[in-house]
Amino acid sequence: MIKRFAKIEDMVLFDKNVAQSQSKGEKEAKISYTKIYEPFLKGFNISLDVKGKKIDSFEFSKIFDDNANINFFIGGAYGFEDKFLKKTQRVISLSNLTYAHKIAKVVLFEQIYRGFCIKSNHPYHK
Amino acid sequence: MIKRFAKIEDMVLFDKNVAQSQSKGEKEAKISYTKIYEPFLKGFNISLDVKGKKIDSFEFSKIFDDNANINFFIGGAYGFEDKFLKKTQRVISLSNLTYAHKIAKVVLFEQIYRGFCIKSNHPYHK
Repeated sequence: MIKRFAKIEDMVLFDKNVAQSQSKGEKEAKISYTKIYEPFLKGFNISLDVKGKKIDSFEFSKIFDDNANINFFIGGAYGFEDKFLKKTQRVISLSNLTYAHKIAKVVLFEQIYRGFCIKSNHPYHK
Repeated sequence: MIKRFAKIEDMVLFDKNVAQSQSKGEKEAKISYTKIYEPFLKGFNISLDVKGKKIDSFEFSKIFDDNANINFFIGGAYGFEDKFLKKTQRVISLSNLTYAHKIAKVVLFEQIYRGFCIKSNHPYHK
């Protein structure tokens, strides 16, 4: 559905280190995400983290006004290290609720589509 | 996955009147949802609406402490009439973002499962 608006690439970055770190504890889990995501920080980067700003769908749609290449980063159950958050241009919170990784992805994809519909006045969003 | 914790019934209440009202405008759309949902208000009722309280997954899990029979109501793109919200015991907001009906349902279902996992100390939630 989004093809006519933008090109989306879905990258799943998850290795042995990330997997093992999850059971070690919060700190280790967060560090493992910094390590595996850091090489992909380029252009305009947005991390999704509960510490981020809670915006509505209209504000979300404005992200696409000024940025042609955007990376969204979804963290693990513990979120991100502050060190990683500082390296991204924006930190957005989808909700106060904790979402499973796959749920966060579905929500994010729908907001991207909704955002482009809002921008182009497509009736999907109402 | 949730079977061992609770019995869930997924009811889709959507008729010709609701469908037609969506294109008439915000007021008509909201009224159509009051009409079709009202007969199902019984026991403990929770409406999901952007005007509601934003809670985290731990607070969400407490819903199940005191209530054995709970109805969750998901509104349309315009949300609910205040009149309907007043008839429900709680109003909860999943997010500042607007979700498609199906997305809201997926998010809600995961929170219910996550809520029971938190209550029973099941490792799913971390």
